[in-house]
Amino acid sequence: MSREADFIHSLRAIATHPAARGLADDCAVLELGSETLVLTHDMMVEGTHYLAGSDMADVAFKLVAVNLSDLAAKGAEPVGVLLGHMLGEGDHRFAEGLAEVLAAYDVPLLGGDTVSGAGPKSHGITAIGRATHTPVPSRSGAQVGDALYVTGTLGAAMLGFEALRDGTGGDHTAYSRPIPLIAEGKALAPHVTAMMDVSDGLLLDTFRMAEASEVSIAINSTAVPVADPARALDCMRWGDDYQLLFALPAGVESPVPATRIGSVEPRGFAPLFLDREPLLNPEGLGYTHK
Amino acid sequence: MSREADFIHSLRAIATHPAARGLADDCAVLELGSETLVLTHDMMVEGTHYLAGSDMADVAFKLVAVNLSDLAAKGAEPVGVLLGHMLGEGDHRFAEGLAEVLAAYDVPLLGGDTVSGAGPKSHGITAIGRATHTPVPSRSGAQVGDALYVTGTLGAAMLGFEALRDGTGGDHTAYSRPIPLIAEGKALAPHVTAMMDVSDGLLLDTFRMAEASEVSIAINSTAVPVADPARALDCMRWGDDYQLLFALPAGVESPVPATRIGSVEPRGFAPLFLDREPLLNPEGLGYTHK
Repeated sequence: MSREADFIHSLRAIATHPAARGLADDCAVLELGSETLVLTHDMMVEGTHYLAGSDMADVAFKLVAVNLSDLAAKGAEPVGVLLGHMLGEGDHRFAEGLAEVLAAYDVPLLGGDTVSGAGPKSHGITAIGRATHTPVPSRSGAQVGDALYVTGTLGAAMLGFEALRDGTGGDHTAYSRPIPLIAEGKALAPHVTAMMDVSDGLLLDTFRMAEASEVSIAINSTAVPVADPARALDCMRWGDDYQLLFALPAGVESPVPATRIGSVEPRGFAPLFLDREPLLNPEGLGYTHK
Repeated sequence: MSREADFIHSLRAIATHPAARGLADDCAVLELGSETLVLTHDMMVEGTHYLAGSDMADVAFKLVAVNLSDLAAKGAEPVGVLLGHMLGEGDHRFAEGLAEVLAAYDVPLLGGDTVSGAGPKSHGITAIGRATHTPVPSRSGAQVGDALYVTGTLGAAMLGFEALRDGTGGDHTAYSRPIPLIAEGKALAPHVTAMMDVSDGLLLDTFRMAEASEVSIAINSTAVPVADPARALDCMRWGDDYQLLFALPAGVESPVPATRIGSVEPRGFAPLFLDREPLLNPEGLGYTHK
C-alpha cells in the first residue's frame, strides 16, 4: 500500500461518525439542529497543486472555488469559509484574489489562521454550507436505469493549464479560475440520484461514482462535450474542470443545461465502460497526483 | 508594517461579515437556523510550530487540542473536526495521535484532505462546535470592576518544551499534549463577561483582552500560579498552556477551580499593569512568532 493509501486507511478507521463521508466523498454532511451542514476542506501546495511563480490571486481564487464546487455538488448554499494561509511572496495578490472570489460568490470570510514557514507554501480552505435539499446528494446513489449527465465542456482546464505552462499567452481562465456551479447544484439536488464535481477527470470520477454506487456506468465518448475533439481522451482524463456529473432517473429532464453522456447499468465485469470497453482499474484514468 | 500585519490587514478588509470575529478573536461565531456555530482553524508548520523530528503523534494531538481549546474558550461543545494534512514521515504515528485525541474528547473526524508536498510539512485542523450559551463569550466583554481569573498553572508548557528540546527526559506532556478545557469552558460561559484561552502567554493574552475590551487590566504577579516560581515572569510570557483566562463580575464565584489574579479597571495609561507597572506595548510580552 502506498504511504498515502496507508494513511487514508488509518483515517477511515478513525472516521466512524456517520457524518464522515468527507474522507470518501469530498464533503462531510452533518445534521445540526434544524440545519444540515455540508463541510469541506481542501489544501493547495506550491509545486504540487500550483506552479511556483503563479499569480497568487489566481491561487486564492481557485482554492476557494474548488471548495465551493464541493458544496455545489451537494446542492449546498455556502455560508462562509475559513482560511489557513502560509505567508510569503505574493500575499498582496493572494488577498486580492481572495476578495474577488468571495465577492463573486457572495461568501463571507469567517476566520482562519496565518502562519510562517520555510519551503513551499501551503494553503487550506474550509467551506461551510447549508444543504438546500435533503437527503444531500452523494456519489453513491446512482441507480440502474439512470442516465448520466455532465454540465459544460471537459478539457478546458487542460488547455488553460497548457497555455499557462507553455507561456503561449492563450486564455488560462478555465484552469486558473474555475467556476463553482452553485446555482446549478441547488437546482439539481432535488432530482439527481447521484452527483459529484469533476475534479480529477471525467473517467476517474465516473469510475468512483460507479464504485460508490455499486453499479456499472457506460459512457459514450462521442457524446462527451470536449474542448479539443482531437484530444478527446485527454479531455476526459484531465481534472480541474469542476463541471457537475450526475445521474437522473429515466424520464427526468435536467433542470440545467447538461449533456447526456451515458447510462447506469447493473454491476458488470467492470465499474466503467467507455464505448463498451471495460475499464477495470482507476490507474491512468485521471488526475490522482494529490 | 510587517508582511504578516499587512496581509492580516487585507484580510480584515475582506472579512466584513458579523460572524468574522475569527480574524481578531480566534473563532468565528455564526448563527445558523436554531444553532450558533463556533468555528476555528489553526495550522501547525514543521520548524515553526513543532520541532523537526517530533513524535508526530504528539503533533496530531496538539493540533486538535489547540483547536478544541479555542472552542472551549467560547463555551462551545465540539461537533467535529476536518483535517488538512501534508503526507510524510511519521504519518502512522500522526494517525495514532489523531485517534487518541479524538477519542479522549469524543470528537469525530468528519473529513479533510491529504496532500503531497516538498519541504517542511504543514497541517491544519478546522474545529466545528455548537455554542452552549449565547451570547458566546468573547475577549472583548470585560467590564470595569470585574475580577480576572485563570485556571490551572502557567509555565508548565514552557518547562515541558525545555525538557523536550534539551532531551532531559523530563515530562513534556504539558507542552506536547495540552488539555482543552471544554467542560470548564461550558461551565464558565454563562457567567463570564470575557474569556479566552492562554495560547500566547498570560501577559500578551491579557493585554489583548484589555485592548479588545477597551479597559485596563491589572495583574498581581504574586497571585499568578506558576510552574516555576524562580522564573515567574517567563511563566507568564510563555504560551502553549491553554488555560482559560476570564473576567467575572464582582461577587460572582467561579464555577470551576481558578485563581483570581487581577482586576479590570477603567482604561488608563496602559492596557496592562503588572504589579502597577504599565505595559504599553505587546512586544516582548509573549509568544508572537506565528
